[in-house]
Amino acid sequence: MAIEIERKFLVRSNRWRDLVQPGKRYQQGYLWSDPVRTVRVRIAGDRAFLTIKGQTDGLARSEYEYEIPVIDATEMLATLCVSPPIDKVRYRLPCAEGCWEIDEFFGSNAGLIVAEIELDRPDQPVQLPDWIGEEVSHDPRYRNSALADRPFSTW
Amino acid sequence: MAIEIERKFLVRSNRWRDLVQPGKRYQQGYLWSDPVRTVRVRIAGDRAFLTIKGQTDGLARSEYEYEIPVIDATEMLATLCVSPPIDKVRYRLPCAEGCWEIDEFFGSNAGLIVAEIELDRPDQPVQLPDWIGEEVSHDPRYRNSALADRPFSTW
Repeated sequence: MAIEIERKFLVRSNRWRDLVQPGKRYQQGYLWSDPVRTVRVRIAGDRAFLTIKGQTDGLARSEYEYEIPVIDATEMLATLCVSPPIDKVRYRLPCAEGCWEIDEFFGSNAGLIVAEIELDRPDQPVQLPDWIGEEVSHDPRYRNSALADRPFSTW
Repeated sequence: MAIEIERKFLVRSNRWRDLVQPGKRYQQGYLWSDPVRTVRVRIAGDRAFLTIKGQTDGLARSEYEYEIPVIDATEMLATLCVSPPIDKVRYRLPCAEGCWEIDEFFGSNAGLIVAEIELDRPDQPVQLPDWIGEEVSHDPRYRNSALADRPFSTW
C-alpha cells in the first residue's frame, strides 16, 4: 500500500500552458465510490490501471494500483461504471517539490482546470506559482469520483 | 474479459471427502457488490487476486481477474471490505465435464457446503454425482457476496 498525500488548487491563469509538454489523455470511471473506498478504472495514454483508494485521513489516503490490459479497462468503462467516465488531459510540470499535475477537463466537466502536487508529508512547504489559485484540497466536490457523479457543468 | 458460466449445488453427503486431495484455504471479501458489479479481494493459499464481476445474465457473468500482492490483499480484507471476509476451504474434484469445486465454509457460514462446476455453455449436460443435492444456481442467497452480508448462520 502507498499513502498518497496531495494538495489540490484551482488554476487562475493560462501561464502554465507555455511551461508544459503536450499532455496525456485520461479517461476514468468508478466501479464504486463511497467515503470508505473508491475503485477506479483509468486509461492513461496507451496504458490502463485499476486503482483502489481507501478513506481520506486529512490530506493522506491509502492507495493500491495495478496495471491491467487496456481492452479490459475499455470494456469496464463502457459497462460497469456507476457514472459516465471522466475525460481529461493531464499536463506535468516539474518543480522544486516534485511535479505539478495540471488536469484540464472536457465533456461535462469542461471549463474546470485543477493543479495537484503530491507531497512526502502533509506539512511540507510548497512554493505556489502565480497561476495557482484557491486551494480546494478539502472540498469534496473536486474529487474526480464526485466530478463523475456531479459534473462541473451542473454546479 | 472472460465469461463465467457455472452451476451451483448443495452437497448432501460426505462421500466426496474420500475423493479429493487436501483443500486450499480461501479468504475473500468484497470492496463492493450490487446487481451490476462486484469487486472481490481473495487470498487463495499463498496467492491473492482482485476480481471484477459484471451483471449475471442467466448462468453467465463477465469476469476480470488480476493477481495482486498478498500483503495488499491482507490489508484490503482488514480495512476496506463492506462485510467481514468469508473463510472457506476449496476442494477440487476432476470429472468428465471439467472439475467440481467444493467449498466448505467456516466462521459465520459454518455448516454450508456447496459444489460448483464451470461449463463451456449454459446448456452443457452435467452428470451429477450421488453426493450432489439441490441446485441453487439461481438462488442469490448462495452467492459469496450475499453470504458475506447475510451469513448462513443468520438464515
